[in-house]
Amino acid sequence: MVQPVLVIGTGLVGTSVGLALRAAAVRVHLRDDDQNAVVVAASRGAGEVGALDEEPEPVRLVVVAVPPAHVAEVAAAALTAHPDAVVTDVGSVKAEPLEALTGLVDRASLARYVGSHPMAGSEQSGPWAATGELFAGRAWAVVPHPGADPAAIGAVEALARTCGADVVTMSPDEHDLAVARVSHLPHLLSVLAAAQLVDAPAGHLSLSGQGLRDVTRVAGGDPSLWTQILAANAPALQGLLRGVRDDLDALLAGIHTGTAEVDAVLHRGVDGTRRIPAKHGGPSHAEAVVVVSVPDRPGELARLFADAGQSGVNVEDLRIDHDPGRPVGQVELVVQAAAADRLVEALSARGWTAHR
Amino acid sequence: MVQPVLVIGTGLVGTSVGLALRAAAVRVHLRDDDQNAVVVAASRGAGEVGALDEEPEPVRLVVVAVPPAHVAEVAAAALTAHPDAVVTDVGSVKAEPLEALTGLVDRASLARYVGSHPMAGSEQSGPWAATGELFAGRAWAVVPHPGADPAAIGAVEALARTCGADVVTMSPDEHDLAVARVSHLPHLLSVLAAAQLVDAPAGHLSLSGQGLRDVTRVAGGDPSLWTQILAANAPALQGLLRGVRDDLDALLAGIHTGTAEVDAVLHRGVDGTRRIPAKHGGPSHAEAVVVVSVPDRPGELARLFADAGQSGVNVEDLRIDHDPGRPVGQVELVVQAAAADRLVEALSARGWTAHR
Repeated sequence: MVQPVLVIGTGLVGTSVGLALRAAAVRVHLRDDDQNAVVVAASRGAGEVGALDEEPEPVRLVVVAVPPAHVAEVAAAALTAHPDAVVTDVGSVKAEPLEALTGLVDRASLARYVGSHPMAGSEQSGPWAATGELFAGRAWAVVPHPGADPAAIGAVEALARTCGADVVTMSPDEHDLAVARVSHLPHLLSVLAAAQLVDAPAGHLSLSGQGLRDVTRVAGGDPSLWTQILAANAPALQGLLRGVRDDLDALLAGIHTGTAEVDAVLHRGVDGTRRIPAKHGGPSHAEAVVVVSVPDRPGELARLFADAGQSGVNVEDLRIDHDPGRPVGQVELVVQAAAADRLVEALSARGWTAHR
Repeated sequence: MVQPVLVIGTGLVGTSVGLALRAAAVRVHLRDDDQNAVVVAASRGAGEVGALDEEPEPVRLVVVAVPPAHVAEVAAAALTAHPDAVVTDVGSVKAEPLEALTGLVDRASLARYVGSHPMAGSEQSGPWAATGELFAGRAWAVVPHPGADPAAIGAVEALARTCGADVVTMSPDEHDLAVARVSHLPHLLSVLAAAQLVDAPAGHLSLSGQGLRDVTRVAGGDPSLWTQILAANAPALQGLLRGVRDDLDALLAGIHTGTAEVDAVLHRGVDGTRRIPAKHGGPSHAEAVVVVSVPDRPGELARLFADAGQSGVNVEDLRIDHDPGRPVGQVELVVQAAAADRLVEALSARGWTAHR
């Protein structure tokens, strides 16, 4: 891929891009208004700071990894400052920043801009949480506008692949509709569930279980970042939120008696969960869950995984169902369905209480 | 505790009660209209089938573990058929079945009934998914009505403790308000998020990530069971659903511009997540997350846990952030905050990429 690369914004995603590119021996320069962040990113090996003038070659690719509200202005400045560079950004929303950018630069400069969006993140933020493997095997949406230079598109695709991601090409509008549904709306519903806990008597929270934790986990995300994301993707979100309100009204009208409308919403929920691709991209039904009881002592999980490993079965995912004060945890191991019986047998033979 | 015990309904919870009681050497009899279920439950060691007539003593405790809509009628029949027995149920809602039961039996019989609700379950169902450790360390709500016999309350508390659970005593109305907020409402919001996926173009789902999976996991639950739970707890849920609709309207009105109302909802979401008790009942800030990159090969998780185990640090929870096709997973280990640095150091020394 082209180099040197300039990463502007050394938070979680920008620093992770730097780490991934450095691992591929690409020359990377880092910039961030927050000197603390950029020093941490550099110290973690994500690239160099302040050495841009010493580069024998001009910057060929700029990765804009700043908060959503600043993407357009920073991308415009980068297109102007680096006339030989392709400019991309990694923001969660694509149509609105593109529109803003179109008003800031001429058509020739705009041809060098191709937006993108790696589908990777974390509840954590900042350069400390970064890892060069953040994008490995993830989708990375490459989102060209109609006037984009094919060479610029190729450069951004190469960036995504060098970071280990799989390229998914979409138009800006299509991308924003997709993330509204699979990311922004679920975030808002998680927030709505968590927000209702604020007024609960403390005693009520003592009945919290794993389901509540799962539903509300993402609601812990940074409100100022999310306000920007929501504002930028408001058109796509609005239609979905209206659909949610219709379903909510059906629930409000029907839960007393269990109407056909309530039943329909619950069934659409089940159907919706089945549409989510399984991990590794395979169909969900090809996986099976093996449940194992694990005493809550240091070393027990190690022993379980050692025993599972010796069975030759690859554990694809797992969950510890483990609630306040519970001395024994229940671990769910997700494995290929064809291998589940073999795993149960192997674990049982080693003294574990395991079943499908 | 009193015995023999009769468990009516050998699904996940009833069978798990049988297994837990048998592990404590309590005599258990099983009954279910579904002969297949009762045979599976008995074969797993949850109790005996059809031997009630041979018992030298009358049944002293009946555990009603049937679907919510049948709790009152089955409990009434049990109070009549077993005049020496205390009767409890394990249903998710308490006020409405109590009211129905009050209309079915006389006051003297009603004194022998004490509702309860173990806060344990699973996305899975049926006797195969049962385990005697399902309730270990979990809250078990004991929910007496004003006319309950103190000896009956004691018998149900002993049941919960014998199953390894922690007794939490609440009134029926208080219980129903609590579970509306920490269980039923989050379930409905998970359903609403999942339901919007049904109409999505398949390409959009290719951008699914871990956040979507977490938010929508519980939406896969059995719609017919949930219709009954929602109907039985409609009064408590209705107020919460109206609160959600108010928040939703604030989002709809404000996401374009990012109003103070939107900001307030997002912040209440963050605050809500902080109110959920941490696992082990400790405060959440006493825990820390250590992130480790793990290659997706058999045995790597085993090696990680063996190395973590040798550090002497107890891993309290974990999450694999692992998306479609991704060759390398990121494992988050939740440990006591005071032990996190020690774990990072120990894992790094063994060649892992680990950080807080």
